[in-house]
Amino acid sequence: MSPVPDAYVDLLERPLFGHLGTTRPDGSPQVNVMWFGWDGELLRFTHIPQRQKYRNLEANPNISMSIADPDDGYRYLEVRGELERVEDDPGGQFYMELSERYGHPMSKPPEDADDRIVLVVRPTKVVVH
Amino acid sequence: MSPVPDAYVDLLERPLFGHLGTTRPDGSPQVNVMWFGWDGELLRFTHIPQRQKYRNLEANPNISMSIADPDDGYRYLEVRGELERVEDDPGGQFYMELSERYGHPMSKPPEDADDRIVLVVRPTKVVVH
Repeated sequence: MSPVPDAYVDLLERPLFGHLGTTRPDGSPQVNVMWFGWDGELLRFTHIPQRQKYRNLEANPNISMSIADPDDGYRYLEVRGELERVEDDPGGQFYMELSERYGHPMSKPPEDADDRIVLVVRPTKVVVH
Repeated sequence: MSPVPDAYVDLLERPLFGHLGTTRPDGSPQVNVMWFGWDGELLRFTHIPQRQKYRNLEANPNISMSIADPDDGYRYLEVRGELERVEDDPGGQFYMELSERYGHPMSKPPEDADDRIVLVVRPTKVVVH
């Protein structure tokens, strides 16, 4: 069962920007603005393995993401979770789906389609404000 | 000298919401939406020592904060830095200053004024997008 309260699930369903926190190998935090997908159970991020964030997650699979309501910055959600698996993204299909969700439909795959992967994260705890 | 590029300093000067990442004692990340102040050199946050974030910073003084431009979510700044010192906030004065900066001027100190402290963070690295 999803730990996301019904009254806040819109913050995951709407195409908002997530501020994704990971822990760097030296233990310091890193926060990046990310697109995400939500299917009611799992969060998905498009990524490429050459990035620091991926190396962070290989060493420490824990994430925290905060999402603020653009209509009321005092209403926000912090989702904590864990990288459950990494999926291939043949042809950048998931990237294109996310791109459409965020209002930028693409007519062809991204140039780095061959490198694209999907980070699949299971929320374990949600804090709402 | 501040590591913040001139072209992005508006993201610190405007009263935007910061997504502040810290590392929890177990090594997992935590991200919280925060008010902040910026004087051209140091970031300041109002806080109370009873919170988890404070315990995180006692154990690991590194922070990362991302701030997205509300007019263009693809324009954003990640500031990394270190807690340089903690200052008292007699009477909640700094809390009231921040509250005014964020459009909520207060006519009297907050109820937890006696507990209020100021987290003073020195930026060490800035990544812009």
